[in-house]
Amino acid sequence: MNKPKIVILGAGFGGITTAVKLQKKLSRNDAHITLVNKHDYHYQTTWLHENAAGTLHHDRTRIPVKDIVDTNKIDFVQDTVVEIKPDEKKVVLKNGELDYDYLVVGLGFEAATFGIPGIMENAFTINSINSARLIKQHIEYNFAMYNNEKEKRPERLNIIIGGGGFTGIEFAGEIANRVPELCKEYDIDPKDVRMIVLEGAPTILPGFDPQLIEYAMNSLEARGVEFKTGALLKECRVDGITYEKDEKQEDIPALTTIWAAGVRANSLIETSGLEHNRGKVPVQPDLRAPSHPDVFVVGDCALIMNEETGRPYPPTAQIAMQEAETIAHNLSALVHGKENLESFEFINRGSVASLGDSDAIGVIFGDKKIFGWTASFMKKMIDNRALFKIGGLGLVLKKGKFNIF
Amino acid sequence: MNKPKIVILGAGFGGITTAVKLQKKLSRNDAHITLVNKHDYHYQTTWLHENAAGTLHHDRTRIPVKDIVDTNKIDFVQDTVVEIKPDEKKVVLKNGELDYDYLVVGLGFEAATFGIPGIMENAFTINSINSARLIKQHIEYNFAMYNNEKEKRPERLNIIIGGGGFTGIEFAGEIANRVPELCKEYDIDPKDVRMIVLEGAPTILPGFDPQLIEYAMNSLEARGVEFKTGALLKECRVDGITYEKDEKQEDIPALTTIWAAGVRANSLIETSGLEHNRGKVPVQPDLRAPSHPDVFVVGDCALIMNEETGRPYPPTAQIAMQEAETIAHNLSALVHGKENLESFEFINRGSVASLGDSDAIGVIFGDKKIFGWTASFMKKMIDNRALFKIGGLGLVLKKGKFNIF
Repeated sequence: MNKPKIVILGAGFGGITTAVKLQKKLSRNDAHITLVNKHDYHYQTTWLHENAAGTLHHDRTRIPVKDIVDTNKIDFVQDTVVEIKPDEKKVVLKNGELDYDYLVVGLGFEAATFGIPGIMENAFTINSINSARLIKQHIEYNFAMYNNEKEKRPERLNIIIGGGGFTGIEFAGEIANRVPELCKEYDIDPKDVRMIVLEGAPTILPGFDPQLIEYAMNSLEARGVEFKTGALLKECRVDGITYEKDEKQEDIPALTTIWAAGVRANSLIETSGLEHNRGKVPVQPDLRAPSHPDVFVVGDCALIMNEETGRPYPPTAQIAMQEAETIAHNLSALVHGKENLESFEFINRGSVASLGDSDAIGVIFGDKKIFGWTASFMKKMIDNRALFKIGGLGLVLKKGKFNIF
Repeated sequence: MNKPKIVILGAGFGGITTAVKLQKKLSRNDAHITLVNKHDYHYQTTWLHENAAGTLHHDRTRIPVKDIVDTNKIDFVQDTVVEIKPDEKKVVLKNGELDYDYLVVGLGFEAATFGIPGIMENAFTINSINSARLIKQHIEYNFAMYNNEKEKRPERLNIIIGGGGFTGIEFAGEIANRVPELCKEYDIDPKDVRMIVLEGAPTILPGFDPQLIEYAMNSLEARGVEFKTGALLKECRVDGITYEKDEKQEDIPALTTIWAAGVRANSLIETSGLEHNRGKVPVQPDLRAPSHPDVFVVGDCALIMNEETGRPYPPTAQIAMQEAETIAHNLSALVHGKENLESFEFINRGSVASLGDSDAIGVIFGDKKIFGWTASFMKKMIDNRALFKIGGLGLVLKKGKFNIF
């Protein structure tokens, strides 16, 4: 009898958690499991804004796959997925092809630019170790350049953050803490630096509690961050941006624009032949693709409706890791010939946005608002919990955040 | 009776040593001394290649003027010299003017580009804290970019060093040590990085002992540095260079070109009306300008012939600091109404070129060749001695180099 072949695409929060859970449930004799990832490391996507600002080294954010995955039980293939062919039960990689009996798609997100001109070419996005450390270097390079030019160029010191959602605000909190250090390093007057958050909605962090939003804005404004709400980015050039507010267009010169206003699922979904809804797979309750019951979808590529609000759950690490547990359970059931698959149910453990190393805001236990040190502590515990889920206590001790006092 | 006014231009090795020596010899009642410098810090020009490579933080290389100069005895003016008017006994600054009875000109060097197209615009020079830390950031930025591009661009990882003299070779030694760290930081194969020294003469370090040159080349080649001798830089573009060797021209793509092949005295000398010889003042034995006996010239702006070789002494920190001692002595004599001024005599304490943190070559005690650990140790002692001369034991303990084992 042939062992079933399970292929997991992506070692993000969803893919790596699926792999880690599966290696506990299945032995080499049960199934042949392959994990495919572009890099030989997993990274904590939710920490990348810290690497991008330069407040945390990127090596703290990434974890070698072989440190988490038991390579006696799971084969690891470092390669890039080029195409998913669910009708042929095949995945095309850059350097090869894989057949599967069961597939788990955890290929994450891409930036969505909504057709705004110049974003692709001129803005930075916080979506990988490579892009995050480039942002850090790009900002630092411009600060280093500033005093080398006779004619001072303010655009070297202006940092535009497109989007006042979670990522934008968390990045603003980090860069606000980093700028005074950079100014000291390069003999620059902090008053010459501008950090500007552009948000199209009437408020930052739309949907968050207004009291917490007020708290966040005060915390960031005190550290020099400016907010332009109801302001739409119209164009991003290499040396500046144009935004529209109250039907008036304004330019800001800036060599650094961080685009944090939109994400979409990996575009491979759209071209895969899997049934999809605006690029995401509207998974069944058991997290299988409706069109292909041998394909599970995890994380940012899966579309799951929140019955209470009638809107899809936003893509977060929290939901991806919970989905992975359900998928691991269901895959194990299928391999063992069981018919009853578990239905996914999201347990909302709350949501905390960091505002820098020692400040944060959030909602936990359903409706309890927290902010300041309490929230910052919670945020670090959430980060540590994610590490624990993936790599146990050893990983928490190695990469965890303990700078809590 | 009016106290004589002494103005010292520049806080480089020559200017700062003059100031430090003078404050020991003269009191506030003897003379009114003013030190003018562009920045509020002195820097060890001979260490800048380490800051540029990123192997030493630039704050180790610079010293606040007020930490060395006794501001009870010497006024410090942070300003840029715009013009020297020796016939009017006046110095024009960006934000003012100063009269003097005695002037010390220690305005250092500029890059000499010999009319090679593109050097001014596209090459970096190692001549200030600002330019050195920019080089560090520029190189690191390009390494950070490398893996962010689908089409890999080798010019991001190619580093051209124009000139195999002291500065070029010392920089090569540092960057050769830094590159493996950068490769680790940005997941780059060290084999993809090129460091290329271009030297017009048939050998690097022209004039140095051939055995030591051989040693230096072996040490650097073992760490990946390539040498092209008898090779003239013909053009420097923003993304590459053209050099000529054996009457054949070759291009090398490179976003980083360090120009270390030529220096000249500060161009203010030429426009000052001081008698000069190709931009330098051919000082009298007492180090006064032949055309203006109330002007002393120290360091890179002074031309002093080596009687033994019939050629001018090269501009070094060693000779600048020795000149400063003579100038301080002679100024003090003049202020005290003495007629007999001391003649400058250069005492050659040898010459050691660093090849990175733990390797060096040099000649000391006239003709003793040293290399490897011994030379590296000597180099660090030379660096520490310069600190001692300027700021005593306190400064040595604060900024000195003790990583000698």
